[in-house]
Amino acid sequence: MTADPSEPAIPDRVTGLPTVERRAVLPGGFRAGGMAVGIKASGRPDLAVILATAGPAAAAAVFTPNTFAAAPVRLSKAHLAATSGDHRGGFGWAEAIVSTSGSANAATGPDGDADQREIARLLSDATGVAPERTLHLSTGVIGTRLPLARVEAGLSALVPAASANDAGLAAAAEALRTTDSVTKAATTEFDLPGEDGMPVAVTVSGIAKGVGMIHPRMATMLSVVLTDATVEPATLWGLLRPAAARTWDQLSVDGDTSTNDTVFVLASGAAGTATVLPGTPEAAALGTAIEAVARDLARQQAADGEGAATLITASVRGARDDAEARAVARAVISSSLVKAAAHGRDPNWGRIAGAAGNARLADAAVLEAAGLPAAEATARAGTPAHLEPTMLRIAIAGHLVFDGTRGGPVTFDRVAARASMDAAEVVFSLDLGLGDGFGEAFGCDLTEAYVIENSEYTT
Amino acid sequence: MTADPSEPAIPDRVTGLPTVERRAVLPGGFRAGGMAVGIKASGRPDLAVILATAGPAAAAAVFTPNTFAAAPVRLSKAHLAATSGDHRGGFGWAEAIVSTSGSANAATGPDGDADQREIARLLSDATGVAPERTLHLSTGVIGTRLPLARVEAGLSALVPAASANDAGLAAAAEALRTTDSVTKAATTEFDLPGEDGMPVAVTVSGIAKGVGMIHPRMATMLSVVLTDATVEPATLWGLLRPAAARTWDQLSVDGDTSTNDTVFVLASGAAGTATVLPGTPEAAALGTAIEAVARDLARQQAADGEGAATLITASVRGARDDAEARAVARAVISSSLVKAAAHGRDPNWGRIAGAAGNARLADAAVLEAAGLPAAEATARAGTPAHLEPTMLRIAIAGHLVFDGTRGGPVTFDRVAARASMDAAEVVFSLDLGLGDGFGEAFGCDLTEAYVIENSEYTT
Repeated sequence: MTADPSEPAIPDRVTGLPTVERRAVLPGGFRAGGMAVGIKASGRPDLAVILATAGPAAAAAVFTPNTFAAAPVRLSKAHLAATSGDHRGGFGWAEAIVSTSGSANAATGPDGDADQREIARLLSDATGVAPERTLHLSTGVIGTRLPLARVEAGLSALVPAASANDAGLAAAAEALRTTDSVTKAATTEFDLPGEDGMPVAVTVSGIAKGVGMIHPRMATMLSVVLTDATVEPATLWGLLRPAAARTWDQLSVDGDTSTNDTVFVLASGAAGTATVLPGTPEAAALGTAIEAVARDLARQQAADGEGAATLITASVRGARDDAEARAVARAVISSSLVKAAAHGRDPNWGRIAGAAGNARLADAAVLEAAGLPAAEATARAGTPAHLEPTMLRIAIAGHLVFDGTRGGPVTFDRVAARASMDAAEVVFSLDLGLGDGFGEAFGCDLTEAYVIENSEYTT
Repeated sequence: MTADPSEPAIPDRVTGLPTVERRAVLPGGFRAGGMAVGIKASGRPDLAVILATAGPAAAAAVFTPNTFAAAPVRLSKAHLAATSGDHRGGFGWAEAIVSTSGSANAATGPDGDADQREIARLLSDATGVAPERTLHLSTGVIGTRLPLARVEAGLSALVPAASANDAGLAAAAEALRTTDSVTKAATTEFDLPGEDGMPVAVTVSGIAKGVGMIHPRMATMLSVVLTDATVEPATLWGLLRPAAARTWDQLSVDGDTSTNDTVFVLASGAAGTATVLPGTPEAAALGTAIEAVARDLARQQAADGEGAATLITASVRGARDDAEARAVARAVISSSLVKAAAHGRDPNWGRIAGAAGNARLADAAVLEAAGLPAAEATARAGTPAHLEPTMLRIAIAGHLVFDGTRGGPVTFDRVAARASMDAAEVVFSLDLGLGDGFGEAFGCDLTEAYVIENSEYTT
């Protein structure tokens, strides 16, 4: 049987997320800017600042789990913990973000930590913000020291010049980049009740870099999401964690987790909304907006993966629960064989079934972030996702290629399937036929260009 | 500082394993053979049999954890369970192994299961062995049916012709191959007490295929180890599991676990040894021999990985325990960035440190196989391996490149390091500086040829 294009073989589940625009929109209560200070040899922009203009902003963060977390990651965690008492460093108050690009300040030992503290002091001098209210991002070469004199000179010029217009955020996004081929931004708007109960327009806007590599090219993912809603740090963290678990934790370019991965969300309160309280419809609306921005940034990062020509989305429905669906989706987009088949426009369902059959649930921390109770997260971490070969159905770019309920492989129009795969995005849709669980994951094809980029250059 | 070649920066830990030879030596009590019956379009050998000639051999097995385990895997488990009562299908008694190459009989549904049972019946007819005393291997295209008539004709010719000489085992090894560039075999010999207490020479000899791919190229690893020692199935299984956990479970070419992976160990008893009892020095000697053969076959498989030019070994010492050392070793050889750096002869310690920082302990089943108590295996599965950046030392091909005890990066002779990496094997040595834990893992470089092989061909 061939796929009927008017009726998708496995219909997409509607995510229910609001629409986003791919442009940098600076919410109220922030200034931002970027410039070149000579950290990068190329002379491209490499220093960015984002400043809260109406006092401390509520801040929440997700950091790399890599044991070799870089100095900016460690310092940001310490600052968040100092301003909130949250010993995990997940949320707190912040008034300034600084990002350096071209040097990761990772594996630099105590000297690197001292350098990052010095940057906090320089930023404090330039802004008047207490050092513990600064947050830090860095990406680039591992094992090299940051040029502090250049950063100091840059901050002196950049802080006064940072703009309260969209162009300032776009400049900051530009300065986050390493080998990214495009600047990444996403924005959505919605209404929340104001302090007087009347609707107030709220913006949630994110910028990001990645997942490109820089010499020596540890993949690094940096994202900053800003909003002008009013919300407490702990509430904001409670919204960020599940959103990140469903989006950035489902993103993979090459399976290597960087030393510097960081997501910050800052809320300025400048829109004048009533404080968003946990568990309310307003919190749900804000969380959904953050997730929509996060999902779109993650898709931009996957599409710009090193050497990538095609964005791969795995959309899994019919799992016993969402955690298992996400595990299967992540297994599919992480498989080197599936990634190579996507590059070759090969509708190779055997590799997809094989990858799905290897799916293991995420780490306990990610499962808990996604909403599982702690004990259940610990018990289920790393266990196999449940699949029944006789219930599984697989569609590639809309073409049904495997139907376990009817014995397995089905006849399909290979020429048409290959043509459908010749696109900027290829969707692998799986219906496990076991329940209501849904999840998706984002990756990219594996190309000769990936190998060349990562093997030709030497340190 | 530069490495002094006379004194390795991080000395290798002596594995304590006996020396192996890379040739097929058929132990007493077996006949073997291989031939071409037309499963492969290429006309190369594709049917192998190994027959126990002195009654049932003790058998132990390790199978793929893939949910989509192929029909031969499911049937072999059922047969082992039927002959021993071991419901996991880990050990039992067997008198014949049959291997088909060119078609995996995976994702073929109930028809594929029926086909495999028919092969058991055909083998039973040809040998007089009860069907439940047959074990089954298959590798090749996923989703295609086996040509039963060709298998039947082949078995009629091959079973009587199977040889009790080494050439028979070599022919079987040849017929296991798919796109393997070489035939893989390893043999060791040692003494065990005979029934009269006098030393008897015992052979442990293995053949293997993989990890090459076949159209549509699910990676498949098949290995068969034979010995003429006398040992009960449960004892044999108790020796195989930790050996596999230290060798094949530490092997990765591309992170994709096949639907057909299988290891069989058969013991004929033909050497006339006293029965090897669990927990004795004799059991330790047999287990060590099995591990030595397994380790060498795993290294041959890694070196012949698809598109590979270089065998990568990660040797990790100084971990808190062996499980953590193995986790770090596996993380290093599994990293796409490390693999690409090896291809480019780039002494890129940043990628090695980053990969090590992501190390997570294996699944509970593997940890338990390696010797951890069940409760500890469950508690520690998937948790991060412990590293201290300030204690870590890294050497690449003998050159010390990172020393956390002295601040991190060290000066080294890059030209000499690159020259040392231009070899058939590159060793990444890590000393975690925390304890006595040791582990190693085996992989290969990531090359353009891998991408081309896996993207150019279409199903």
